[in-house]
Amino acid sequence: MNFYLNTMQTDREKKEMLYPHVSVDCVLLGIDNEQLCVLLVERRNAGTGKTEYKLPGSIIFETEDLDEAAYRVLNEATGLKRIQLKQFRSFGSPTRTSKKEDAAWLERAYAMKIGRLVTIAYLALCKVRKAKPEQKQGVVQWTPVKKLPHLPFDHKEIIQEAIKEICAWIEVEPSIVFNYLPSLFTALQLRRTYEVIYDKELDVRNFHKKMNSLPYVVATDEMEKGVAHRSARFYRFDKVKYNQLYSKLNKI
Amino acid sequence: MNFYLNTMQTDREKKEMLYPHVSVDCVLLGIDNEQLCVLLVERRNAGTGKTEYKLPGSIIFETEDLDEAAYRVLNEATGLKRIQLKQFRSFGSPTRTSKKEDAAWLERAYAMKIGRLVTIAYLALCKVRKAKPEQKQGVVQWTPVKKLPHLPFDHKEIIQEAIKEICAWIEVEPSIVFNYLPSLFTALQLRRTYEVIYDKELDVRNFHKKMNSLPYVVATDEMEKGVAHRSARFYRFDKVKYNQLYSKLNKI
Repeated sequence: MNFYLNTMQTDREKKEMLYPHVSVDCVLLGIDNEQLCVLLVERRNAGTGKTEYKLPGSIIFETEDLDEAAYRVLNEATGLKRIQLKQFRSFGSPTRTSKKEDAAWLERAYAMKIGRLVTIAYLALCKVRKAKPEQKQGVVQWTPVKKLPHLPFDHKEIIQEAIKEICAWIEVEPSIVFNYLPSLFTALQLRRTYEVIYDKELDVRNFHKKMNSLPYVVATDEMEKGVAHRSARFYRFDKVKYNQLYSKLNKI
Repeated sequence: MNFYLNTMQTDREKKEMLYPHVSVDCVLLGIDNEQLCVLLVERRNAGTGKTEYKLPGSIIFETEDLDEAAYRVLNEATGLKRIQLKQFRSFGSPTRTSKKEDAAWLERAYAMKIGRLVTIAYLALCKVRKAKPEQKQGVVQWTPVKKLPHLPFDHKEIIQEAIKEICAWIEVEPSIVFNYLPSLFTALQLRRTYEVIYDKELDVRNFHKKMNSLPYVVATDEMEKGVAHRSARFYRFDKVKYNQLYSKLNKI
C-alpha cells in the first residue's frame, strides 16, 4: 500500500486518478405501449453537434448523501419526488471512462478533467405517464430497452443489470407488478405485464392456472364492456391477502 | 450545476471535497460459539497507542475494479479467495469522516488528507474456522455482533445493515443457512442457527412443524451417538429438492 501511495504523491495526473469522482445514475423503468422502457435524457454533444442520450445522472455534490443525489437527479429528470428509488449496484471499472468521446463530454460538462468515475446506480419502477410532466434536466425520452440508442460509458450494462435486478425483485415481491396495472385488470393485462418485464412469452394455460392459484389475485363480478371480442373478467390485487401470505412464506 | 462547479474551482479545499475517495469494506459474518460474529481487523492507533478495531477495508487502487478491491481486502484479511462476496450497499454520507479521530487515522494511514469517503460495502457468510489461517492485514478477530467494540466511521451501521441484508437474503435463499451446518445436523442445530442469525428465540413446536414441512430438509436414519441426553435424529439438506421447489416458487 505504501508503494502505491508514494507513487501517487509524485505525479499530479496519477494523484487525480486516486481521487475518483462519484456519481449517481438512475434507471427508471416503465411499461409503455406493451414495451419495457427506460427513461433517457437528451444531451447535446457540443463537439459533434449531435443529440445523444444517457441515463439521468450527476456527480454527487459536496454536501449530499448518495440517496439525496439520486433523488435530486430523479426530480430534475421527471419532476417527481415520491417514487421509491432503490440503490442496487455500484459500477466502478477503471475502463468505464476510457472511451475518448465520453472523457471529452465529461470534461466539457464538468469543466474539469475526470479520470476514474465510480457510479452508484439506483432503480425505480414507475408508470410512464407519471414521469413526463416537468423536465428540468432537458428533454426526457421513454425508450424501449430493446431499441436503445448509442449510450455513453457502461449505461447499457447498467440498464441490463437493472432489468435483472427487477426480475429478481419481482420474485421476492410480486406485488411490484401490480403497480403497473389499473385497480381492475384482466388476465390478459396481467400476463402481458409479466411478459414485457420478463421478456418472454408465457403459456396461456399455465399462466391462468398459476394466476388462479395466487390467493391475492381476486376475481371480481365486473366484466369488460364495449369490446369486440368476448368480454373478459376483471381481477383485483388484494393487498391484505398478499401480506398475509408473504408474512408466512419462506420464514422459519 | 455551473454555480456549484465554479465555486469548486476557486477553493482548493472544496475542490478536494469534490474528489471523494472510494473504498471498499467487507462484512464477513460467521457463527462462532452460538453467536453471530463479524470479522474485525486490529489497527494500532499511532496517536494514542491504543489498539482499535475496524472492518477489513481499503481505498480502491488505480487499476482495480470494485469487486477486485473487495477480493483483495478479503484475501488480505483472511487468506481466502473463493468466498462469494456480495456487493450490498454504498455508504457515502458527508458526515462519515467527520469524527476527528477518524480523519486523523485516515491521514496517517494514507499519508494524505482525505475528506469525503464513499465506501462500497460487501458481504459474505463464512464458516469461522475457514477464515483464520493467514492474516496478511494484521490480526483479525471474530467478534460477536452484540459485543462490538468502538468502531470508526459508520462501521457499526454498515454491520447492522449487513445483518438485515442477510436476513432478507435467507428468506429468498434459505439454502444459505445450511452452509453453516455440518452435512448431518440435528433439529436443535438448525434451530439454533436460525435463532442466532435472526437474533430471536423460536418456538420449539412451531419450528419442528415448519421444519418438517420443508421438502428439502430430509430426515436420515442416523442418530446422535454418545450423548448424555436422548439421542437426536440427524437431518440432511437435499439440494436437488431445494432447487426443484425454488424453481417453481413465486414464479409466474
